[in-house]
Amino acid sequence: MTGPIQNRHVVIRTIERADAGVAAAIGATGSSTVHEAIGRRGFLGPDIRPIQSAARIGGTAVTVLAHPGDNLMIHAAIEMCQEGDVLVVTTTAPSTTALFGDLLATSLMTRGVRGLIMGAGVRDIADLNELGFPVWTRHISCQGPVKDTPGSVNIPIAINGQVINPGDVIAADDDGVVVVARAEAAWALEQSEARVAREEGTRAKLAAGELGLDFYGHRKRLEDYGVQYLDTATDL
Amino acid sequence: MTGPIQNRHVVIRTIERADAGVAAAIGATGSSTVHEAIGRRGFLGPDIRPIQSAARIGGTAVTVLAHPGDNLMIHAAIEMCQEGDVLVVTTTAPSTTALFGDLLATSLMTRGVRGLIMGAGVRDIADLNELGFPVWTRHISCQGPVKDTPGSVNIPIAINGQVINPGDVIAADDDGVVVVARAEAAWALEQSEARVAREEGTRAKLAAGELGLDFYGHRKRLEDYGVQYLDTATDL
Amino acid sequence: MTGPIQNRHVVIRTIERADAGVAAAIGATGSSTVHEAIGRRGFLGPDIRPIQSAARIGGTAVTVLAHPGDNLMIHAAIEMCQEGDVLVVTTTAPSTTALFGDLLATSLMTRGVRGLIMGAGVRDIADLNELGFPVWTRHISCQGPVKDTPGSVNIPIAINGQVINPGDVIAADDDGVVVVARAEAAWALEQSEARVAREEGTRAKLAAGELGLDFYGHRKRLEDYGVQYLDTATDL
Amino acid sequence: MTGPIQNRHVVIRTIERADAGVAAAIGATGSSTVHEAIGRRGFLGPDIRPIQSAARIGGTAVTVLAHPGDNLMIHAAIEMCQEGDVLVVTTTAPSTTALFGDLLATSLMTRGVRGLIMGAGVRDIADLNELGFPVWTRHISCQGPVKDTPGSVNIPIAINGQVINPGDVIAADDDGVVVVARAEAAWALEQSEARVAREEGTRAKLAAGELGLDFYGHRKRLEDYGVQYLDTATDL
Amino acid sequence: MTGPIQNRHVVIRTIERADAGVAAAIGATGSSTVHEAIGRRGFLGPDIRPIQSAARIGGTAVTVLAHPGDNLMIHAAIEMCQEGDVLVVTTTAPSTTALFGDLLATSLMTRGVRGLIMGAGVRDIADLNELGFPVWTRHISCQGPVKDTPGSVNIPIAINGQVINPGDVIAADDDGVVVVARAEAAWALEQSEARVAREEGTRAKLAAGELGLDFYGHRKRLEDYGVQYLDTATDL
Amino acid sequence: MTGPIQNRHVVIRTIERADAGVAAAIGATGSSTVHEAIGRRGFLGPDIRPIQSAARIGGTAVTVLAHPGDNLMIHAAIEMCQEGDVLVVTTTAPSTTALFGDLLATSLMTRGVRGLIMGAGVRDIADLNELGFPVWTRHISCQGPVKDTPGSVNIPIAINGQVINPGDVIAADDDGVVVVARAEAAWALEQSEARVAREEGTRAKLAAGELGLDFYGHRKRLEDYGVQYLDTATDL
Repeated sequence: MTGPIQNRHVVIRTIERADAGVAAAIGATGSSTVHEAIGRRGFLGPDIRPIQSAARIGGTAVTVLAHPGDNLMIHAAIEMCQEGDVLVVTTTAPSTTALFGDLLATSLMTRGVRGLIMGAGVRDIADLNELGFPVWTRHISCQGPVKDTPGSVNIPIAINGQVINPGDVIAADDDGVVVVARAEAAWALEQSEARVAREEGTRAKLAAGELGLDFYGHRKRLEDYGVQYLDTATDL
Repeated sequence: MTGPIQNRHVVIRTIERADAGVAAAIGATGSSTVHEAIGRRGFLGPDIRPIQSAARIGGTAVTVLAHPGDNLMIHAAIEMCQEGDVLVVTTTAPSTTALFGDLLATSLMTRGVRGLIMGAGVRDIADLNELGFPVWTRHISCQGPVKDTPGSVNIPIAINGQVINPGDVIAADDDGVVVVARAEAAWALEQSEARVAREEGTRAKLAAGELGLDFYGHRKRLEDYGVQYLDTATDL
Repeated sequence: MTGPIQNRHVVIRTIERADAGVAAAIGATGSSTVHEAIGRRGFLGPDIRPIQSAARIGGTAVTVLAHPGDNLMIHAAIEMCQEGDVLVVTTTAPSTTALFGDLLATSLMTRGVRGLIMGAGVRDIADLNELGFPVWTRHISCQGPVKDTPGSVNIPIAINGQVINPGDVIAADDDGVVVVARAEAAWALEQSEARVAREEGTRAKLAAGELGLDFYGHRKRLEDYGVQYLDTATDL
Repeated sequence: MTGPIQNRHVVIRTIERADAGVAAAIGATGSSTVHEAIGRRGFLGPDIRPIQSAARIGGTAVTVLAHPGDNLMIHAAIEMCQEGDVLVVTTTAPSTTALFGDLLATSLMTRGVRGLIMGAGVRDIADLNELGFPVWTRHISCQGPVKDTPGSVNIPIAINGQVINPGDVIAADDDGVVVVARAEAAWALEQSEARVAREEGTRAKLAAGELGLDFYGHRKRLEDYGVQYLDTATDL
Repeated sequence: MTGPIQNRHVVIRTIERADAGVAAAIGATGSSTVHEAIGRRGFLGPDIRPIQSAARIGGTAVTVLAHPGDNLMIHAAIEMCQEGDVLVVTTTAPSTTALFGDLLATSLMTRGVRGLIMGAGVRDIADLNELGFPVWTRHISCQGPVKDTPGSVNIPIAINGQVINPGDVIAADDDGVVVVARAEAAWALEQSEARVAREEGTRAKLAAGELGLDFYGHRKRLEDYGVQYLDTATDL
Repeated sequence: MTGPIQNRHVVIRTIERADAGVAAAIGATGSSTVHEAIGRRGFLGPDIRPIQSAARIGGTAVTVLAHPGDNLMIHAAIEMCQEGDVLVVTTTAPSTTALFGDLLATSLMTRGVRGLIMGAGVRDIADLNELGFPVWTRHISCQGPVKDTPGSVNIPIAINGQVINPGDVIAADDDGVVVVARAEAAWALEQSEARVAREEGTRAKLAAGELGLDFYGHRKRLEDYGVQYLDTATDL
């Protein structure tokens, strides 16, 4: 009996990508907006944080599953990247070791890649910030990688319980990173932009001093739940 | 435009399961053996720990994706469980709240379920241990759940970067939890049992005082890597 | 202007305690039961864990606020302890240093104290287990304390966001630690025992194979929330 | 027997606040100065961190105890806020879910609220920074809240072992957050400003090259503790 | 210019060991006793925990510095081990991967090694417990090692800020792990046994109901520090 | 028998330092470059982080081993510091308490000290950033120190498993902190600068669109490891 396909290491050359313009537009609405708009799904978790401030990107995922402490497969992935992609990397076991630095960023920038999402570590923070290449990562570390273990490119991977398929949309900003399934991209954009529009109206009302308690109907809800209003603590 | 399928909450009634006997046999070889035998894949991570000592199980996954702090979907999942299953639960955001206790265990035991894997929290530890129902969990907590938010049963979920599909094999013991893809089950059992057999021979040699350094060929490797043997530190 | 009372270090000799029998009876229902019965309140958090297995206690709190790494005030607190008390200790800043070991346990056992809840660290685990003195703690450490800094005994303290007043009921077992306000003790016991009784009935039904989905009315809820039942994944 | 008061969900309309000017002046001296000046008390812990750099605020606490993942009670709290307040929110169990974003900030800014202290998560970081609304929080997350569970406003809450009563003073800056009891506010300001004045003198001496070792009398202390001065390590 | 000695990978064959009997006797007094007796030094930290309960060992350190995820050097170290040794392993960067399991334990047991201290991960917990080979470790994981990177044996290493030299004494039990410098071994035993003897007397007094507050002189200390005794909280 | 030298508290007045110019030049190449250039050693770990952005320093270590929560020995260390030094502080047990603030920084700046590396906590972040004194630390906290316990200055210390000897080179920037042994300084500078030079060439090639996959020879490696290139996922 031979080993099944899952045990092979592969690089998939051609993937179906979400539309690049749609991906960029989704990213522009902000990661929290997208997450909320598609039904509170796709958040990669609070431990994947930006190394820079105020970056906001949207793009299509090229995925890498690497061995901890080994970035050989990132080198293989670069060739598969194109304008509008976001590279998403994770490892088969937890590790803080940096798998990415300014040289790889230089390479990705020549191909029009919009950013990196890293489930392990990165380094060369100062250089990355100077280059203006946006990165979200779980760790920052001086500890660098070897190039000794095979892995795969453009297979489904998962970070903190969220599955990322190659070609999915990645939206990332100061709040974190959200993945949107490729098949949902157009719908997600519609939902996200509708939410942005709705929030504009809400923001105007709130800035004018109206209370969400009133116009959302929360006051009724508090009553239904039996929350009591007391004039002072001594009324308890 | 209507919402895509991914945004629906569903309970899938019929799933294709790995063979129950194969699943049990895989579990019996031990989670680390399986993990190693299939190419170092499938480990759910070092933070999913047993609440008991010395339990070892193998079974087929029934999966639950729940809202943090809400166990409504576990109630829905029980009906889908059968003899030989292992219930695997995770939440859409990190949470320590207990979604499982001795009452749910009682229900699962009547259906022949072999154990629980929980990405959030459990409680009633003393009762669970007394019942002899094996549990692996990320948290233990008194904080109990509500039953107010929909989710899904028997869809693909992920824990710490490992995807678990309904019907996959779960192997769990004191070392942690490993998932094996359903399609790989027969091959994985073959590999795992071969590894157990090989290790028997190795164990006998080691117990007789032979050095792995010699019979594995590591001594040559050390030489190739330039590791120097010195008689004392003063030879440095 | 002189300093306010909050800045003084005090030992309060006489505190009003919840009834000792009530406290013991509350503890006997189990920490998760109590927590649930009083409205999901009072859980000291998932990082306060038992050093032993299967202990279950209930008692009245004598509280200590200590300086990190200093157990002088525990010595002062012992004199204030009586039969049926539980000593609850926390520090003014996070610390792993052990403030408690087998000698202090020996002292507490002569006074009939039922256990210790520790927000910092303990040591002498083997001896404590041999003595059979139950302990719940945030850390285990060899690092011992000095006796150089004042603090207070029998003032209100807080652990992980839960306030513990001297004389409050402490319920602790394998699930963790729950605090019940003294004024609520009788009511909490009534609620907890009612819950235990109700669960007996539920357990019998579940053991007989009935589904909570049916007798709790959750099936209706799933329908209301729009959860769809599909025969197979291909129906998606 | 009816449930006790602690089990009710309440919104307290009128609270006694520390003087707004005093609260602002306390904040201006810096959180570490205040903490030190009042006897090393009131620090909310190293895991409550600012989302911005170089903000420094002082104000009076309006408190919220919310269910994890649910921000209904923040909506209720806004109505209770006035010029000079700081909103302080925590949850009944640990959670990373965001309970606060830019819309709620807009609402609070119209009422003159000076900032937010959050024991769970926030989102819309980029917008909050653009609005200039200062926030200290335990987590940043895209994951948003529901509005389905009651809680309380303006009751005593606790974060990391520090009790915050409504009306207490909150001082927050890059070092973290400190709470000062309302009754201590005037005294705390006096102590804090005295400390600032003293430190000015010390700073001048240190900048001139004098050694704290000398003018604090630490040299004598080192001698008393038996610390030995050796010319080189070989004198050991 | 050639690379300096620190950059070479070496295996030191002959090390000076503390006396085996002294090492065993030190271990028998308990890790916390030793730590305290030698001046509160040498504790390897609260995150190095036993996989078993109630084991207590003392022995002489054979040290390994390994690459994360690679246990080649443990194989090299076994040959250097002798009766009475304890193997102490750490890695050049943080890692949860298991570097040790039951086969290596079998090998070590044939040479009379008393236990393992591991700064990364171990697996085969059930087998190790069955073998009765005591292990203290930072992580438990199914994830196994490769044998592809050189490192060193019997050079000084450090775990959590404590330096361990080859030949030093290791004392380990349920409280954790303490290292004693070889040159201090005889003195450390003397100090530790004196402490045990002293504690015997103290224990007898405490068991008889005497208060440490009195016979330690802490009461005077409380007075000196200005701690006030109040009859009730209302005296505040 | 008297206590051994290791149990004494000492301040070593004269240490051999690496050359100040070499130390500065090493720092200028960046911490990750140094770490890589000397064989992936010396990284103090991913939890020692800068409080500022874009600082980059190199200097010679003056070391402090302090009691948790006590900074008496930092006061003693200042006198031992000179132009070009970096102060490196750790504690005998884990602690978040701040041992350093703007006053100590003022003192160090008058002596030409280039920065601080702290294994516990710091405070006065806003002031430190205003002063422009660079700090890398494990924690930020308002909680301040006492000055009541002896320790040592200029003895070997360890942070996260890396030993720092007085006089060693410290290189620190946004990636973290690396220690280089004094005896290796000249060699390390040579290696680091060679690496910087090599990377310049590589960067130019990558910026021109060449693939590391080609010019590093990784393509051959992927083939050797059996990584398969597939046109689409359906070829699996």
